[in-house]
Amino acid sequence: MSDFLPFPDDSPHEECGVIGVYAPHEDVARMTFFGLFALQHRGQEAAGIAVADGESIHLHKGSGLVAQVFNPANLEPLKGHYAIGHTRYSTTGSPAARNIQPFLIETMYGPLAVAHNGNLVNAGELRQSLLRRGIGLSSSSDTEVLTMMLAGAHGSTWDERLRWAMPQWQGAYSLVVMTRDCVYAVRDPWGFRPLSVGMLPSGGHAIASESGALVTLGCQAIREVMPGEIIALSNKALTVSQALPPMAPLARCVFEHIYFSRPDSYWDDRWVHHVRQHLGEELARELPTPADVVIPVPDSSTPASIGYAFASGVPFNDGFIKNRYIGRTFIEPTDSLRKQGIAMKFNVISDNVRDKRVIVIDDSIVRGNTSGPLVHLLRQAGAKEIHLRITCPPIKHPCFMGVDMGTYNELIAHRLSVAEIQKHIACDSLYFLSLEGMMRAVGRTDGYCQACFTGQYPLAIDPNQTKTGFEKAAAS
Amino acid sequence: MSDFLPFPDDSPHEECGVIGVYAPHEDVARMTFFGLFALQHRGQEAAGIAVADGESIHLHKGSGLVAQVFNPANLEPLKGHYAIGHTRYSTTGSPAARNIQPFLIETMYGPLAVAHNGNLVNAGELRQSLLRRGIGLSSSSDTEVLTMMLAGAHGSTWDERLRWAMPQWQGAYSLVVMTRDCVYAVRDPWGFRPLSVGMLPSGGHAIASESGALVTLGCQAIREVMPGEIIALSNKALTVSQALPPMAPLARCVFEHIYFSRPDSYWDDRWVHHVRQHLGEELARELPTPADVVIPVPDSSTPASIGYAFASGVPFNDGFIKNRYIGRTFIEPTDSLRKQGIAMKFNVISDNVRDKRVIVIDDSIVRGNTSGPLVHLLRQAGAKEIHLRITCPPIKHPCFMGVDMGTYNELIAHRLSVAEIQKHIACDSLYFLSLEGMMRAVGRTDGYCQACFTGQYPLAIDPNQTKTGFEKAAAS
Amino acid sequence: MSDFLPFPDDSPHEECGVIGVYAPHEDVARMTFFGLFALQHRGQEAAGIAVADGESIHLHKGSGLVAQVFNPANLEPLKGHYAIGHTRYSTTGSPAARNIQPFLIETMYGPLAVAHNGNLVNAGELRQSLLRRGIGLSSSSDTEVLTMMLAGAHGSTWDERLRWAMPQWQGAYSLVVMTRDCVYAVRDPWGFRPLSVGMLPSGGHAIASESGALVTLGCQAIREVMPGEIIALSNKALTVSQALPPMAPLARCVFEHIYFSRPDSYWDDRWVHHVRQHLGEELARELPTPADVVIPVPDSSTPASIGYAFASGVPFNDGFIKNRYIGRTFIEPTDSLRKQGIAMKFNVISDNVRDKRVIVIDDSIVRGNTSGPLVHLLRQAGAKEIHLRITCPPIKHPCFMGVDMGTYNELIAHRLSVAEIQKHIACDSLYFLSLEGMMRAVGRTDGYCQACFTGQYPLAIDPNQTKTGFEKAAAS
Amino acid sequence: MSDFLPFPDDSPHEECGVIGVYAPHEDVARMTFFGLFALQHRGQEAAGIAVADGESIHLHKGSGLVAQVFNPANLEPLKGHYAIGHTRYSTTGSPAARNIQPFLIETMYGPLAVAHNGNLVNAGELRQSLLRRGIGLSSSSDTEVLTMMLAGAHGSTWDERLRWAMPQWQGAYSLVVMTRDCVYAVRDPWGFRPLSVGMLPSGGHAIASESGALVTLGCQAIREVMPGEIIALSNKALTVSQALPPMAPLARCVFEHIYFSRPDSYWDDRWVHHVRQHLGEELARELPTPADVVIPVPDSSTPASIGYAFASGVPFNDGFIKNRYIGRTFIEPTDSLRKQGIAMKFNVISDNVRDKRVIVIDDSIVRGNTSGPLVHLLRQAGAKEIHLRITCPPIKHPCFMGVDMGTYNELIAHRLSVAEIQKHIACDSLYFLSLEGMMRAVGRTDGYCQACFTGQYPLAIDPNQTKTGFEKAAAS
Repeated sequence: MSDFLPFPDDSPHEECGVIGVYAPHEDVARMTFFGLFALQHRGQEAAGIAVADGESIHLHKGSGLVAQVFNPANLEPLKGHYAIGHTRYSTTGSPAARNIQPFLIETMYGPLAVAHNGNLVNAGELRQSLLRRGIGLSSSSDTEVLTMMLAGAHGSTWDERLRWAMPQWQGAYSLVVMTRDCVYAVRDPWGFRPLSVGMLPSGGHAIASESGALVTLGCQAIREVMPGEIIALSNKALTVSQALPPMAPLARCVFEHIYFSRPDSYWDDRWVHHVRQHLGEELARELPTPADVVIPVPDSSTPASIGYAFASGVPFNDGFIKNRYIGRTFIEPTDSLRKQGIAMKFNVISDNVRDKRVIVIDDSIVRGNTSGPLVHLLRQAGAKEIHLRITCPPIKHPCFMGVDMGTYNELIAHRLSVAEIQKHIACDSLYFLSLEGMMRAVGRTDGYCQACFTGQYPLAIDPNQTKTGFEKAAAS
Repeated sequence: MSDFLPFPDDSPHEECGVIGVYAPHEDVARMTFFGLFALQHRGQEAAGIAVADGESIHLHKGSGLVAQVFNPANLEPLKGHYAIGHTRYSTTGSPAARNIQPFLIETMYGPLAVAHNGNLVNAGELRQSLLRRGIGLSSSSDTEVLTMMLAGAHGSTWDERLRWAMPQWQGAYSLVVMTRDCVYAVRDPWGFRPLSVGMLPSGGHAIASESGALVTLGCQAIREVMPGEIIALSNKALTVSQALPPMAPLARCVFEHIYFSRPDSYWDDRWVHHVRQHLGEELARELPTPADVVIPVPDSSTPASIGYAFASGVPFNDGFIKNRYIGRTFIEPTDSLRKQGIAMKFNVISDNVRDKRVIVIDDSIVRGNTSGPLVHLLRQAGAKEIHLRITCPPIKHPCFMGVDMGTYNELIAHRLSVAEIQKHIACDSLYFLSLEGMMRAVGRTDGYCQACFTGQYPLAIDPNQTKTGFEKAAAS
Repeated sequence: MSDFLPFPDDSPHEECGVIGVYAPHEDVARMTFFGLFALQHRGQEAAGIAVADGESIHLHKGSGLVAQVFNPANLEPLKGHYAIGHTRYSTTGSPAARNIQPFLIETMYGPLAVAHNGNLVNAGELRQSLLRRGIGLSSSSDTEVLTMMLAGAHGSTWDERLRWAMPQWQGAYSLVVMTRDCVYAVRDPWGFRPLSVGMLPSGGHAIASESGALVTLGCQAIREVMPGEIIALSNKALTVSQALPPMAPLARCVFEHIYFSRPDSYWDDRWVHHVRQHLGEELARELPTPADVVIPVPDSSTPASIGYAFASGVPFNDGFIKNRYIGRTFIEPTDSLRKQGIAMKFNVISDNVRDKRVIVIDDSIVRGNTSGPLVHLLRQAGAKEIHLRITCPPIKHPCFMGVDMGTYNELIAHRLSVAEIQKHIACDSLYFLSLEGMMRAVGRTDGYCQACFTGQYPLAIDPNQTKTGFEKAAAS
Repeated sequence: MSDFLPFPDDSPHEECGVIGVYAPHEDVARMTFFGLFALQHRGQEAAGIAVADGESIHLHKGSGLVAQVFNPANLEPLKGHYAIGHTRYSTTGSPAARNIQPFLIETMYGPLAVAHNGNLVNAGELRQSLLRRGIGLSSSSDTEVLTMMLAGAHGSTWDERLRWAMPQWQGAYSLVVMTRDCVYAVRDPWGFRPLSVGMLPSGGHAIASESGALVTLGCQAIREVMPGEIIALSNKALTVSQALPPMAPLARCVFEHIYFSRPDSYWDDRWVHHVRQHLGEELARELPTPADVVIPVPDSSTPASIGYAFASGVPFNDGFIKNRYIGRTFIEPTDSLRKQGIAMKFNVISDNVRDKRVIVIDDSIVRGNTSGPLVHLLRQAGAKEIHLRITCPPIKHPCFMGVDMGTYNELIAHRLSVAEIQKHIACDSLYFLSLEGMMRAVGRTDGYCQACFTGQYPLAIDPNQTKTGFEKAAAS
C-alpha cells in the first residue's frame, strides 16, 4: 500500500480499484462510496463515482482519498439504481484531472461511463487508429482509448459492442461499464487483474476488484468474473456471457497474492491471507536459518511472518512500528535531520531485536531503496544478525499490464546479482523465495503471469506502446 | 455586467471573452492573465489559459473569477510563446467543469486548443453527425463540437482545415485556436461577435474580444479581425486570409454597443462610449420630457445619461448607489427582510431625487424584474415623477447567437405591450428608443443583427438545435 | 474604496465598519450579514458576526470579503435576538487571524463581545497597564485593550462599567458592545468616526457605522449616536445616556465626507453626495480654469466632478474606465509589461479627452503614486492640457485616530511643495481645495478634525503609542 | 488510536501530545513538525507550532492532521532556535479554533507560548479566580488558565514564576513553555502524563510526550522529565530543577502502557511493547482457556496477543483486517446498509476463525459498543467459540486527569456486571485482567493511578470543576 512520507516506499504499485452496483432498493452512490473505501489501498490519488437513473448519468470525481473527494453534498445529486466507481493510484507522472475516472461520454447509443483497472499493451496502436479516424483525445489514459472505441463500436446492443471491441484489446482490463440502465463487468481473457461479483442482501448485485470490498457491502454468493466474461447487471436479470474463451494458461497477477490484495480477499479459490502464510512457510523450508525472532516489515508481510514462525519454530514478534497517519506531506526533512537517521515511517522496538538473530520478512524488493535503511535501523537497535527473506523471486522485468514496477534501469535485481544486493543492503543474509516455492504457496502450477521474474510475457509487448509512451504523446 | 446578489439582474448575458497572444519576448501566460482580467465583464463563471512552447501545450482552467482561478504557482508551468485564454459567463444550467474552456485535445495533426465566443445555430446537427461518426462527446458545449470537427478536418495545413470547417459552422463564432506553434483568430462571416488584433510593443501580436483589452496590454495598430477572416500569429509572420466572403449585410450584435462592451472599446469604427452617449441623445430627441434630473441605472447607463443631459439640458446626477463588492453569496434575505424593502444592490441618493421629476436611463428590459423595484426605491425616496427611458427597443425574441436573453416566455416584451410593462413597473412614463433612433446613434443603417427586436434572424434557426437543446441531449 | 490590483491605490484607508442589531422577530445573523455587506467598502480584510440569545454568545469570523467569510452553514448556528458585526480593512502589517473582530471573551460579569471602529491614541499606555496587572494579551489590536479593560471594569451594570472605562480611552472609538442580552453603541466624545442608529420596521433597532447601511436594512427614524453617548438596545427598551459631555468643538473626520462614506450616507445633518458635489463646486469657484471637459477619477470623485461641471459650465463626462472586478491577485505584471504601460485598473476613453483641455477631479493625494500614471494615460490618449484638482488640501500629517494615511515620510505633501508635486505628476496645473473651501462645502466652520492638513491634533499624541507601536510590541 | 469512521471506536481518548526543541544548528520548525508527526496518534483534531528566535515568537496552528495543518509555505516564516508544538485530540464538544494550542500571549515579562497535555482538576476554581481579577478569557481550555496565571505570576525569572504557579495547579500537566529564548518542560508531581527529554545529535535537546518521538528525531540519552521537575533548554545550558517534591506514591496513568503510547516508547523504565506482551501473558495465566487461535483487535492489542500466545501455546494469527485509511468522512451508511452488516472498519479473515475456538484480545471496554459487532462478525465467519479477553480491569469511573473515558452513565462497567456485559456482547466468555495481574505486567506494585478501575482518585475531585464544567461556563 502506497504512502506519501519522505521515507521511500519500495513496493510495486497497483493502478486502480473498480466497483459496480445495481441496487434497486439502495442509495447506490453511498454504497459505491463504501465499496471504494474498502478498495482505497488500490489507489490513493483520485476517485470518482458515476450513477445512472435509467435516463441520464451523473458523475462526481476529484483528486485525493475517497473520503476527501466525497461529502454528503456532492453525493446527494447522484441518484439512481446503477453506479460505477473508481479509485486511482498516485503516479507522479500524470496526476492530471483529465485522467481521473470514471470517464463519461455521450455516444450515438446514449451516455456511457467506463472505469478500468489494468493496462492495454497495444494502447499506442489503438490510440493512433482513433486519431487517424479524426477523433480528438483529451487525456493520456488508455481508459479514454477503451471508451472512445466503445463510442464507435459496431453492434446493435452494448453486449455486441463489447464483444466487437474485446478482441482488439491486448492486455489487462477489468472494466466496469455503465449505460443509462445497465452495469457491465468485463474481464480480459488472461485474467490479469481480479474482478468479482456478489449478490446484495437487499436485491441486486455488486462488482468489485476484490471480494473483500463485496463482503464489506454485505454481499453473499461471491464469485469471480471469469476471464473473458461479460456480466450485465440490470433490472431484468444478471446475465453472464463468455465473450472470449479464456486463455490457456491464464495469466493472473501473482502480486495480488503477494502484496496488492486485502488479506481478507478471496481469489482463484484461495484466501490471500492463507497464501501469504504459506509464502512464509515455504521460505522457512527452503532455507532454514537459526534465529531468535522473526519480524515482518509491516503491514503486508505480517501473514508471511506468522507462517514462517509456524514452520520454523522461530518466535514471531513485532520489530518495526509503522506510523499509521498516512497522508501527503510536502515537507521534507533537512539533510542534517536525514543524516541523524530521522526515521519517519518506521521505528524499531529495540527490546525485541537487541542482541538477537533476526529474520526479517518483506514482500518484495523493487528499487531496493528501503531495505538498506531498515537493516540500518535494526543494527542501531542492537540486532546481532539480520537475515532478510523475501516472499517472491527477484523482480528483473517491468510490468506492462498495469503494475508500476519502474523501468529496467530502476529495478535493482535487473542491475545487480543477489550477492550484490545483499552487499548493498548490508544484511547478513538475503534470500528470495524460489519461483517454485512461490507457486507451491499459491497452490498452482500454472495460470499465473511470472513475467516480472522471468521476462516471459504472456503476450507480445511493444515497449513503444507502453503507457509511458502514451503520456509522452498526449503531452506533446 | 452580471453579478450574483439576491437582487435580480435584468441584463442580457454575454457568453464569453477570448484572447490570443504570440509574444516571443514576454511571459505569455501572465500577459494572457491580464488580458482576461480586462475581459472579466464578459464572463465570471470560469477561466482558462493554454500555452504552447513549440512542442506541447499546457493548460490550466477552473471555476471562478480570473483572479481566483490563477495564482503564481499555477501560472508558472505555463511556459511558451503562444497562448490563448477564455473567460466564461455564469449560467445556472451548465456550470460543469467539463464545459470550461479552452478545450485541449490531441489530434492526428498534433495538439490543439480552442476557445470560443459565440453560438452555432446548427450545433445540434453537427453534434449528431460527430456522434454518428462514432465519436464520444464529454461536454454540452458547442465548442467541443467545433474542436472535434477540427480534429477530423480535411486539409494538409491548419489553415486548410479551418477553411474546410468554417462553411459548416452556421452562427456566431469568434475563435482563438492554438496549435503547438501558431495562434489563429477566426471570425464568422456575419461578424456577430467582436474580435480585434493589435501589435505588441515588444514584438508579436495579441487578439482579444475587445480592443479595450488590447489597449490594456499596450497594443498599437489595433484593428478588427474582419468577418470571415483567419489571422495566424506565429514566429514567421502575421498572415491574414479571407477564408469566407463577409456576409452582406453583416450582422454585428448591437448589444455590444448597448451593454456588453467596455466603454473604452472601439468597434466598427466607433467608440462604444460615444455610441452610448448618442443613444441617450436620441432618447432625449425622440421624446422630450420636462424633468429636474436625469439619472443612470449604474453602471452601463451612465454614458447614455450624460448624452441625454447634453441633448435635453436636464441636469445629470447620480441617483442610485450600486454596491461594488461583486461576488457570489448563497445567503438570501429572509422573506421578512425582503418585505421590508431590503435593498441589497442599489440604494437611492434621496437628496438627488426628492420632490423631483426624474428621468431614469436603463440599457434594456429583458425579463422585467428589476425596473419595478428600482422605481419603488425612487418613490420611497420622494421622487415626484419617474420617467423610465430605455436605450434600445423592446426585446421580443431570444438570441440564438450567443447571448442569453432568456426564452420567449421569459421576455416581458414578448408577453406584454409597452403600456402593460409601464403598468407593471409602475413608473409615470416608459419609453423605448426606436430601432431607427438606435441605429442613428450607432451611425449605421445596416450591418447589425436586430433579431431580438424584430424576430428577423440573419440566418435560419432551428430551435431544436439551440444550446438548450444540446444541454438536454448531453445530460441524457 | 480599496482594491488589490497591482496598480497602486492612493487613497487613505478606513479601518473598519461596525454594526449592531436587536431584532426580536428577525434572523439577526442574516440581517447583520446584509448590513456588513453594505459596509464592505470600509474594510475588506476580514469580517465577523457574534450573536447572543439571552444566554450565550456564538461567533464566526474569518479572513476575506463578507461574502467569502459567511455561508448558510456557518450563519446557521448563530441564533439569537442580538448581534454585532465587524468588517476590517486590509493592512499588510497585521493581517493575523487573532486580530479579526468581534472579540469575544468570558468575564466575571458574563460573556462580552466587542467590535470597534477607530483608534485609541493612548493604547500603548493602557496596554502596559493591563500587562502590569498580570494580564496576557494575544493580539496587537487596541480592541483587545478595550475589551480587557471592560472585563475588569468597575460598576454593577454594564452601563456603569462603560462609563468607568470611557474617560480612560483617549481617541476615536465607535463601538458596538454585546452582552448576553444587550447591544450597546458607544461613541467617543470627539465624534471622530460616525455611528448611527435606526428603528427596524419589524421591531427592534440597528446600529451601523453609516446610515446607508441602516437604509439597506429598511431602518426608519435614523439618527446619529451622538459623541459621548451610550445607547443600549435590549428587550426592555432603547435607552440613551450621555456618558461623557461632547467635546467642544467636536472633531469629526472630514474624510468621511471626502472619501470614506457611501454617497448615500447622511452624517452631521448632511448627505455625503451633496457635500461632495459642493466640494467640486468650491474647486470650480476657487480657481476657474478654461477647459473642454471635466472627468472624475472613478468612483469617489464622480459627485465632485458633477458639482464642478454645474459650477463651471465645463461639460462633465467619463474619462477613465475602472475595472470593477475587485479581488486579490498575487500575480504581478512583469517589468516589461509594466514598461509598456500596462494599465490594469484604469483605461482611458480616448474619444472623450483627445485634443481637449481636461479637468481631472480626484479626492486626495496621499503617497502620490497614482496621479502620475493617470496623467500619463491621459497624455497618451491625446489630452491637450491636464489640470488636476483635488477636493481637499494637501495631507501633510499622519492620522492617529484610525485612518491609515501612511507615515510622515510616505506623505508626498510632507516632503514636497505643491509646485514640486505638480512637477512630479507632470500635469499642466495642480490645485488643492483650500481648507476654507472644503469647510464651506461641508457647511460648517468647526466641529471637524483637520489634523492631517494642519498638524493640529484635537488631543495630545504620543507617537510611541500609535498602533504601529503596539504591533511591534505584540510581535516581539 | 482514534479514527473517524462510522464504525464506533471504543477506546479511551488521550488529550494531547507536546514537543519542545532547542536546536541551534537545525530548522527547529521542521524538526518539531516531524516530532508532532510521530505523536499524531495522541491527537488528530488540530496541531500547532510556535518558534522563538531570541526576540519574538511566531505561531502557526490549525485544524486537522499535522500533515494537513502544515506545508512548506506556512513553516517557512517560523524561524528560530526554539520551538514548541502540540497535537490535539478530537472531541466533538469543543473543536473551536480558539482552543487550538500552543497558546501565545504577550505578558509584562515578554512573549509566552504554552502547550499542555493533561487536565487540571481545580481549573474551575482557578478560572473563577482569574475572572475575579478582571481578566477576560477567550477559550474553554484549562491551558488558557495556566497561561494567564503565568502572565501574572510572581517572581523575577520564569523559573521562579513557574515555581510560584505549580503548587496552585492540581492535576495532570505535562507542559512545554516557551519564552523568547528558552523552552521549559514542566511536569506535575504526580507524574500523570509522560514527558521525556533527549539530546539531539547536532546539539541542543528535545522534549516530547513520548520517547518514541525523540527516537524519531535521532535523540540519544533519553530520560523522563521527572514528576515535579522543571527542565530549561536554552543557549546557556540544560538546567534541571526539582520544583516540587514528587508525590509518594506517584500516579502515572496506566493507560499509557495499555493503549495510548506507541509500542516503541519507553516509560517508567519499561518498553511499552514489553508491558503489553506481559499483559497478554498474565491474561493467559489468570484464566487458561482451551482454544485454537488467539487474535488481536488491531492495532493496539497485537503485542498482548503475541504474549498470550507465548504463555498459552495457542497459536497467534490475524483475525481482523482494519481499514488503514483513517480520515474524517461525514458520509454515513444508510440504515439499510447498516442492517446488512456493512463492516466499514473491520473485516474478518474467515479462513483463520472458521470452526475454531477463538481467543480475542482487546485493550479495554469503555462504552461497550464495539465488542458486540466484532463478536457478531466472528460468528458470521463461522467461529465456533469466542472468548473475549481484556488487558485491564473493568473501567467503572471517569478520568478527570486528561483522558476522555466518558461520563459515569456512558461507562458500561459502571452500569453492568461482567456477566451482564458478556450477555450484551454475546461472547462465549469474557474476562478482564485483574488489577494485580495488570500491575504484575507493568512490574510495579504502586506508582500508578488506578482511579478509573477503583474510584480512588489520587487527589480530591470536585466534579463541578471538570472540563465539561468549564466548557459550559465558557459557552454561556
